[in-house]
Amino acid sequence: MKKISEKNSADKPIGVFDSGIGGLTVLSEIAKLLPYENTVYLGDTARVPYGSKSKETVVRYAFEDAAFLLKHDIKLLVVACNTASAYALTRLEKQLHIPVVGVIRPGAKAAVAVTKTKKIGVIGTEGTIKSSAYTKTINTADRGIKTYTSACPLFVPLVEEGWTNNKIALGVAKEYLSEIKNIGIDTLVLGCTHYPLLKDIINKVMGNKVKLIDSAEATAGEVKRMLSESGQLTRRKTEARHKFFVTDSPERFIKVGKKFFGVRLSKAKLARLEGN
Amino acid sequence: MKKISEKNSADKPIGVFDSGIGGLTVLSEIAKLLPYENTVYLGDTARVPYGSKSKETVVRYAFEDAAFLLKHDIKLLVVACNTASAYALTRLEKQLHIPVVGVIRPGAKAAVAVTKTKKIGVIGTEGTIKSSAYTKTINTADRGIKTYTSACPLFVPLVEEGWTNNKIALGVAKEYLSEIKNIGIDTLVLGCTHYPLLKDIINKVMGNKVKLIDSAEATAGEVKRMLSESGQLTRRKTEARHKFFVTDSPERFIKVGKKFFGVRLSKAKLARLEGN
Repeated sequence: MKKISEKNSADKPIGVFDSGIGGLTVLSEIAKLLPYENTVYLGDTARVPYGSKSKETVVRYAFEDAAFLLKHDIKLLVVACNTASAYALTRLEKQLHIPVVGVIRPGAKAAVAVTKTKKIGVIGTEGTIKSSAYTKTINTADRGIKTYTSACPLFVPLVEEGWTNNKIALGVAKEYLSEIKNIGIDTLVLGCTHYPLLKDIINKVMGNKVKLIDSAEATAGEVKRMLSESGQLTRRKTEARHKFFVTDSPERFIKVGKKFFGVRLSKAKLARLEGN
Repeated sequence: MKKISEKNSADKPIGVFDSGIGGLTVLSEIAKLLPYENTVYLGDTARVPYGSKSKETVVRYAFEDAAFLLKHDIKLLVVACNTASAYALTRLEKQLHIPVVGVIRPGAKAAVAVTKTKKIGVIGTEGTIKSSAYTKTINTADRGIKTYTSACPLFVPLVEEGWTNNKIALGVAKEYLSEIKNIGIDTLVLGCTHYPLLKDIINKVMGNKVKLIDSAEATAGEVKRMLSESGQLTRRKTEARHKFFVTDSPERFIKVGKKFFGVRLSKAKLARLEGN
């Protein structure tokens, strides 16, 4: 892990970006686990979603998002978007001078720790599934594990529409999950930050024996571990400040984002990125 | 209508842009009606969709799309995206030196011509519905007509997923359309270029008495009329050339786009716009 040498760097904020609002599930877990850490969040709502776009485009967007957050003098960068983590994490780690945490490694590790049958299911966007990032990471930890993947493009629009627990959501979940279910996995990675909002429905389809892995919690744990190991946890004991930026429609972001982050999300500023 | 003074301007191509692949339904009707006209199509697949984004952002994107097509020396610009037509058409008409055709006026006119009960339904993206562009245009033509609108955010992802005629599509359509249906409209405007692919399902929900208006056909008619009135129809009688550009994933565009435009869509080039 890279270290930060300047004075008081432990009091700098944590930067978090996502293609839109989904990353707020990750931010929410970070704020729960590290209540004194200031954060700066960027949602690229002008170009959302990333999940159906190409690797080249997502990498370009990820670097533009990172550049914006770096201007806010962050001490650590969280890539709270599975697609961006799948496509851009290695390059970001190489090129940035601060530590970078993605959502895939923590989620994969948590799944490996939980599975007994060594059959893990992974669901995500087209991009995340196509990248095989979860499969590779899981197999780096344990070659004996078999993964079964399914891209679920309609899950994000369902969540954005607020249809997280109706007949339609159930029908869509059955369509996407029936094949994975029949294979007999015991662990299912929710490989997209929107999916935790569909937990009830996914649980209904998969049954109680299948453990659902939400990367958000695992990622917050990884952030804490990294900051703690490098002595970068803040020593302040005052209430944290959370700043929000979006590239489009702050009002819409606040309205939908409250479902993820509650009342602490009452203000968001419009950000203009370099490439957009 | 603005006129073009240079020599041979009638042989210049028609420019068409959309946020992604939906505009191919419009291009397809233009090619059917005007088989000798060359065309240049731009799909802004790196930033799709436009329907959930703000007016300011969509206007900016529309001008960047137009600027790209103008470099291809087009004689007329078709805004084949309802959201971009709703938000940006007036400004494009004012600022460009060539004629501009949107999809809303032709669709609205066709609906006004068809309705007998003077109750027209309009469905579209969040942006299109929020703009009230159809309602305003319909009421400019006939103040006595009442319009009933419904935003259908899940229709586009359903089409992109290829789920145009299954139980889930039917369930979603029922959810979005039942209120409009109960009002007793006799005409329904499909105010998004993706929706014609859901015609069967929409028809099933609305019943045979409700006439569905597909802007694509009406828009092609308007393009023909404008070119014809200004003497700008090509006189060549050779097979037309259709060029395709996208801002992301040409392969994906070709794969999905074939559903809309058939075998004539076999090649698409990556375009880099100024703002993106």
